[in-house]
Amino acid sequence: MDDFVFHNTTKIIFGRGAETRVGEEAKAFASKVLIHYGGGSAKKSGLFDRVAASLKAAGVSYVELGGVAPNPRLSLVRQGIELCRKEKVGLVLAIGGGSAIDSSKAIALGVPYSGDVWDFFTGAAVPTEALPIGTVLTIPAAGSEASTGCVITKEEGLFKRAVNSELIYPRFSALNPELAFTLPKEQVANGAADIMSHLFERYFTNSRPVELTDRLIEATLRTVIDAAPRVLATPGDYDAWAELMWAGTIAHNNLLNTGRVGDWGSHDIEHELSASYDIAHGAGLAVVFPAWMKYVYKHDVPRFAQIAGRVWGVDNAYMDQERAALAGIERLEGFWQHLGLKVRLSGLGIGAERIPEMADKLTNKGTSTVGNFIKVGRKEAEAIYRLAL
Amino acid sequence: MDDFVFHNTTKIIFGRGAETRVGEEAKAFASKVLIHYGGGSAKKSGLFDRVAASLKAAGVSYVELGGVAPNPRLSLVRQGIELCRKEKVGLVLAIGGGSAIDSSKAIALGVPYSGDVWDFFTGAAVPTEALPIGTVLTIPAAGSEASTGCVITKEEGLFKRAVNSELIYPRFSALNPELAFTLPKEQVANGAADIMSHLFERYFTNSRPVELTDRLIEATLRTVIDAAPRVLATPGDYDAWAELMWAGTIAHNNLLNTGRVGDWGSHDIEHELSASYDIAHGAGLAVVFPAWMKYVYKHDVPRFAQIAGRVWGVDNAYMDQERAALAGIERLEGFWQHLGLKVRLSGLGIGAERIPEMADKLTNKGTSTVGNFIKVGRKEAEAIYRLAL
Repeated sequence: MDDFVFHNTTKIIFGRGAETRVGEEAKAFASKVLIHYGGGSAKKSGLFDRVAASLKAAGVSYVELGGVAPNPRLSLVRQGIELCRKEKVGLVLAIGGGSAIDSSKAIALGVPYSGDVWDFFTGAAVPTEALPIGTVLTIPAAGSEASTGCVITKEEGLFKRAVNSELIYPRFSALNPELAFTLPKEQVANGAADIMSHLFERYFTNSRPVELTDRLIEATLRTVIDAAPRVLATPGDYDAWAELMWAGTIAHNNLLNTGRVGDWGSHDIEHELSASYDIAHGAGLAVVFPAWMKYVYKHDVPRFAQIAGRVWGVDNAYMDQERAALAGIERLEGFWQHLGLKVRLSGLGIGAERIPEMADKLTNKGTSTVGNFIKVGRKEAEAIYRLAL
Repeated sequence: MDDFVFHNTTKIIFGRGAETRVGEEAKAFASKVLIHYGGGSAKKSGLFDRVAASLKAAGVSYVELGGVAPNPRLSLVRQGIELCRKEKVGLVLAIGGGSAIDSSKAIALGVPYSGDVWDFFTGAAVPTEALPIGTVLTIPAAGSEASTGCVITKEEGLFKRAVNSELIYPRFSALNPELAFTLPKEQVANGAADIMSHLFERYFTNSRPVELTDRLIEATLRTVIDAAPRVLATPGDYDAWAELMWAGTIAHNNLLNTGRVGDWGSHDIEHELSASYDIAHGAGLAVVFPAWMKYVYKHDVPRFAQIAGRVWGVDNAYMDQERAALAGIERLEGFWQHLGLKVRLSGLGIGAERIPEMADKLTNKGTSTVGNFIKVGRKEAEAIYRLAL
């Protein structure tokens, strides 16, 4: 087990009506907040009004900024930063999924910073300060509600980049599984793929040994594999949504990578895809991960055989390990297809045309690599994109 | 899944040399600390000196109070409170296992309280304030290094009572698996029983459904079952100790009871035992839990069959569920015996003489109950103690 520091300070408020408790939580940090959200659904559903009423009851005033889109854009982040400065906002409160939360995190980083917020995403600057953040989660997927991560897309040049900092752990997150009941099926499936991908990124590690976190990841994967088809079949199944929503948080709150170095190459490989084609992150991961797995499994066949056995029930004790490893990847593909996901680029209507360009951007024209399990350079990236065709 | 709030703020510093980093951590809270510890081993081993040097390097001064015994005593807590007040201590830093940490927590609660600290343990008062606490863990067992719990024994009348409060989550805990290398085998086995008991207390719940936390608990149990025999066989096995130490924290940091109400009857039943006979808590649990399980399993045979199958590998898919449930309890007994633990009171040299008295104290002469999975009153308590003979 590698040495580690774990200090996740996010307060989770879980259950029916959790969103009506954010006023009391926000009050501890600010007298004025920015409510930041996506399309009109938060308003139409009455969720926005419940959150606003909760703030009002706690004596907290607010300004609002909607319009966050999937693959959230830098331009809206800049608007949010200006608005917060002008209005002297003390906390950014996201309503939505990963996009609204990540946009909020970027705003929170930008407000106290005198330079350009994009500096944090290029690595030109390291955050030292941020406004506090709160969230009302509506989509179990990104795990941003209790994570250190934030991913933003810069429209000029289609750059999608991430920043990680303990400063942007939300101070509180309200998780009400009922808020996910009305999600479109496609978004539910994308979310499940995203959650599972966060677990895979942590699972495929060169750190040894990591028995406890292996088993905790496997436990969380099995829960998602059980719950996701149930919520697709019965969108009002509170119990199944509760499992999926809490699993989505646990998958990404840094507990499951304690003592191990995760991979994260597939996330970077996918970011080029969704930046280039504006597809949903989860949909892109469902295409990238099987291809990545087929490219890398020989690096550690026993680990792939282990997950095949423990998570997918492949009877690998007496089987050739390589056959078991490959059977596990096939079961993953079958499971994602069963959820309605495409596991090939062709299914998303994407061809080979931009592969060289994506591989170039991913690796700064072959001068850098992504991932840790194996280092993915330009050549490897091209091969993985082609395996995904 | 039940509604819940989860907000564990303890910072975990894990790995070799973790104890040398407590000065930097303590500095954020206080310029003077109380180092609180047990017998002479912390001094003899050089651990105390490394901690003291770390404080000194960070410009933090200290006073010290040793002498914490297993089943830590109220009288020493009172001494610690007086010392902290007199010396204007700002943080209590425990070196040791659950006893040193719980004694430190009680001191931290008592210092800012004008009444008698025992009030918090009788329920006569509820904590509203506490000094910050830090820990250097030497025994994976109690999980107190990241928990809200604290158990103290009042010598007059031999009352052993617990208090729970988020105020006593340690602000930081240094976990260096190497510090456990020199533990006596008996203490290692007791510690494993304590960790597993924390997991059982959470597992046996009437809350439904709790799929994710069921699986996370099972994952942690399997890790302990794998690691404990390894550290007993090879006391210098860092990797196995790392798994056991981190599992001990996860078992009790409140994550695994999110969305569910645990039982905790066996802990109360054991507290009467260890208060009456001054045996180690883990040793007492190894006797109480099998007896409790045999008394209660009919309340939820499928749950006992589930743990038998998933944790103990009992092939329960095609087996009579009750037979599987009982086989799981037998495998637990066998595993604990393999660790060198006694699973009957007779093995500890304890007879039936004080059973009526313990059952009386446990239930306030039959006027109250303990536990949630089933309510244990006077009659049930006597039956469980007798099953343990």
